[in-house]
Amino acid sequence: MSQRIDLNADCGESYGAWRLGDDDALLRVVSSANVACGFHAGDPTTLRATCARAVDQGVRIGAQVGYADLRGFGRRFIDVPAADLTADVIYQIGALQAIARSVGGTVSYVKPHGALYNTIVGNETQARAVIDGVLACAPELPVLGLAGSAFLRLAAGSGLRAVAEAFADRAYTAEGTLVSRTLPGSVLHDPDEIAARVVRMVFDGTVEAIDGTEVELRAESVCVHGDNPEAVQVASRLRQVLEGAGAAITPFA
Amino acid sequence: MSQRIDLNADCGESYGAWRLGDDDALLRVVSSANVACGFHAGDPTTLRATCARAVDQGVRIGAQVGYADLRGFGRRFIDVPAADLTADVIYQIGALQAIARSVGGTVSYVKPHGALYNTIVGNETQARAVIDGVLACAPELPVLGLAGSAFLRLAAGSGLRAVAEAFADRAYTAEGTLVSRTLPGSVLHDPDEIAARVVRMVFDGTVEAIDGTEVELRAESVCVHGDNPEAVQVASRLRQVLEGAGAAITPFA
Amino acid sequence: MSQRIDLNADCGESYGAWRLGDDDALLRVVSSANVACGFHAGDPTTLRATCARAVDQGVRIGAQVGYADLRGFGRRFIDVPAADLTADVIYQIGALQAIARSVGGTVSYVKPHGALYNTIVGNETQARAVIDGVLACAPELPVLGLAGSAFLRLAAGSGLRAVAEAFADRAYTAEGTLVSRTLPGSVLHDPDEIAARVVRMVFDGTVEAIDGTEVELRAESVCVHGDNPEAVQVASRLRQVLEGAGAAITPFA
Amino acid sequence: MSQRIDLNADCGESYGAWRLGDDDALLRVVSSANVACGFHAGDPTTLRATCARAVDQGVRIGAQVGYADLRGFGRRFIDVPAADLTADVIYQIGALQAIARSVGGTVSYVKPHGALYNTIVGNETQARAVIDGVLACAPELPVLGLAGSAFLRLAAGSGLRAVAEAFADRAYTAEGTLVSRTLPGSVLHDPDEIAARVVRMVFDGTVEAIDGTEVELRAESVCVHGDNPEAVQVASRLRQVLEGAGAAITPFA
Repeated sequence: MSQRIDLNADCGESYGAWRLGDDDALLRVVSSANVACGFHAGDPTTLRATCARAVDQGVRIGAQVGYADLRGFGRRFIDVPAADLTADVIYQIGALQAIARSVGGTVSYVKPHGALYNTIVGNETQARAVIDGVLACAPELPVLGLAGSAFLRLAAGSGLRAVAEAFADRAYTAEGTLVSRTLPGSVLHDPDEIAARVVRMVFDGTVEAIDGTEVELRAESVCVHGDNPEAVQVASRLRQVLEGAGAAITPFA
Repeated sequence: MSQRIDLNADCGESYGAWRLGDDDALLRVVSSANVACGFHAGDPTTLRATCARAVDQGVRIGAQVGYADLRGFGRRFIDVPAADLTADVIYQIGALQAIARSVGGTVSYVKPHGALYNTIVGNETQARAVIDGVLACAPELPVLGLAGSAFLRLAAGSGLRAVAEAFADRAYTAEGTLVSRTLPGSVLHDPDEIAARVVRMVFDGTVEAIDGTEVELRAESVCVHGDNPEAVQVASRLRQVLEGAGAAITPFA
Repeated sequence: MSQRIDLNADCGESYGAWRLGDDDALLRVVSSANVACGFHAGDPTTLRATCARAVDQGVRIGAQVGYADLRGFGRRFIDVPAADLTADVIYQIGALQAIARSVGGTVSYVKPHGALYNTIVGNETQARAVIDGVLACAPELPVLGLAGSAFLRLAAGSGLRAVAEAFADRAYTAEGTLVSRTLPGSVLHDPDEIAARVVRMVFDGTVEAIDGTEVELRAESVCVHGDNPEAVQVASRLRQVLEGAGAAITPFA
Repeated sequence: MSQRIDLNADCGESYGAWRLGDDDALLRVVSSANVACGFHAGDPTTLRATCARAVDQGVRIGAQVGYADLRGFGRRFIDVPAADLTADVIYQIGALQAIARSVGGTVSYVKPHGALYNTIVGNETQARAVIDGVLACAPELPVLGLAGSAFLRLAAGSGLRAVAEAFADRAYTAEGTLVSRTLPGSVLHDPDEIAARVVRMVFDGTVEAIDGTEVELRAESVCVHGDNPEAVQVASRLRQVLEGAGAAITPFA
């Protein structure tokens, strides 16, 4: 039996003299790169280098839109009015489209980042604002988000292609939602355990919840992390195990 | 005898709660709007409103790229390395392209702003960096600059369409260059005098230099200002006089 | 019968090329100037000019600390972690202290701005974070805030001098709280009505609530606005009427 | 024979999620910490943590003022008008003073950073602007700069205490100036060679120039680097060798 799965990770998060993440290593592992757009991370030079590397490696480029918050790395909720958030999303997508085009690439999807990603799991006003931004400038682009989120539901309802992702290193509740990071056991660290879980997600469409029950989990992409050396090792091991199990690591359709 | 001339002005220069310029009035006067791209002025919401208004008025949209310097409004030289400047230009053009697209418009040319505009009159490194940015993401776009500048010369040499502009309210030297703003008489204020000078530029291709000599001046566009109420009045009067003289105010070819 | 009252207003809110408010006019009206500290508004040059003018006019200088959000003018809630907010408050106070000192002035109180002001009416975590900032670098400074707010209650409890203010142009509920800006009648515009209300606040310690009932309102300072020409007129009229009624406009004790 | 020498290094250069330098290690080596002030690097939380660590280690804190340029890390010349630069310097010094005070420390000197440091070696306008800033808010503070620079000369002339520093890892010309970084041999890397050179600077007041001649070099402080693991090792080795030779590592008088 054969399967295909997309692996995605955040890239392009350096800023000026500050380095963050190992894009070179990560782009050898994933099939989709969520490239920052300069609002929460990623100066234009960094973004251009990251896109060029993604093009070289045959990795698909996505626009990772976020709050305008370098200091907080986009991880702090900001109560941005809807019209402003929509304009911010359009601006970021366009900026990365030109950056990608300048190195022979193209932006193929949109994925919100950090606190914006988390906010629009439930906040419909901001979810719609992001969707309005995508619709207004790039309605052909799929959006990547959390399975079961308001964002994906509203995106699908508005005609966007909505792609659900799972998290390789996060524990799930019996309801199929993420266990809060503030709870013990919410984040997994063992590379082999993580790889085994993802193999099961990909081939069986299930995950073992934190209470031991088996939960259905349908995702077209799996998010891995790469912001530290251990994370890159986990991601590399995951790719190796998935390929060993017969899965093809390839962008979502 | 009939003539056509493009009038251009800087627009979209408000930022958040801060208002600057009267875009509504200005867009009823000019045929080309140099819209800021967020680096020296113009938040995404402002840019979107300005582009929407330009589309409504049938005014052409240009990307006014600048140094990343809100505090200095792009008017302070920054010694940006070439690769960074190129990436910054790409980023800004793309951002405005998406903003324009989101309101049914399109970016039709590129014009550098403020200190960047002035720098690349003579600084070939930064001039080439800007040109490289345009070539890398939007080689089909004309660039607008100062007649006789290194920027226009190098742009033309690299295959870009290089469009020279004149300034409605600036005095010229006998060599056809701008009189420095630090010298007396460098900036004109009388609306009728300004209008009469531009009529002569448009119909005769000449201007009276500050020393009284007649100088040839070939420009496809004339830059007017709109950052204060008087400037808008000067621009309005100019349009009225030009049309009265039989000139059509229309985007450059 | 004689009374004294402090009038305070936001100043120093220009930024680079962008002008906002008429500090010169406002500083002839108020006794306390809430000077921005560069995070939500106010570049260092502006702050220095505003402080110099305040010193000239004998107006007391307060540090108006806010969220780091130029784009949103500090009017958008940001979920800043407490330790970061505390450090931000310290940084802003110190910056303005040096600016004030450089023109022969001194910072005499602290007043939060915009969304931060509103947030700490009820959000104890951010309220404590602001208080911790003041305590850590300038425990001798009074803090100005909304009567009945968590901020003032916790500030007083921590040993800071907590000063309650009223709003000249805002309607109050029968409970003595502000009527939300989203409701009709929440903001008053008539200069004479506003002046008459403040006279009553100052001399009787009461205000007529939006439902017609009389409410006790004890405030040591009254906040006026100055971000547009009408607001400055309202403030000027208020000062004139207060002085005519025998009140001395003077900083709170 | 005994000698004392100050070692200084740049600290507090992280920003938000981005880490840079190993302040903990560096503060065990140096006697003076040039702490960033938030304009070119260093968010308030970082600055507070760095100052707290400096206080713990008994290391003196200096305000490292720079251009407002996070993207360029303060390493790009900006043509800041003098009045703005003066205000920026005041703002930064005050901000760090409050941050230091909040952890029981104090700012004891001022050292310009990066492109500003290099600019005011020769640019008298910007040099005076920095000096005016120090004079206006903290005239009691010494300023640290390059021996022979316009900055130190003008600072001394204006009544500031001007302290000259040498660079541990840089080659010198026969005239006692730094060999440009663009030339081969301008930067030294061997820890023992660097240490031996600094011992000679400290005990003999001389350095061997790049052409082999012996040059007099009088400095009250030696600048070491710490922005990467090798740099910290070089600095540690230097301290060890200096102490072994009988020198006391202690703040300049």
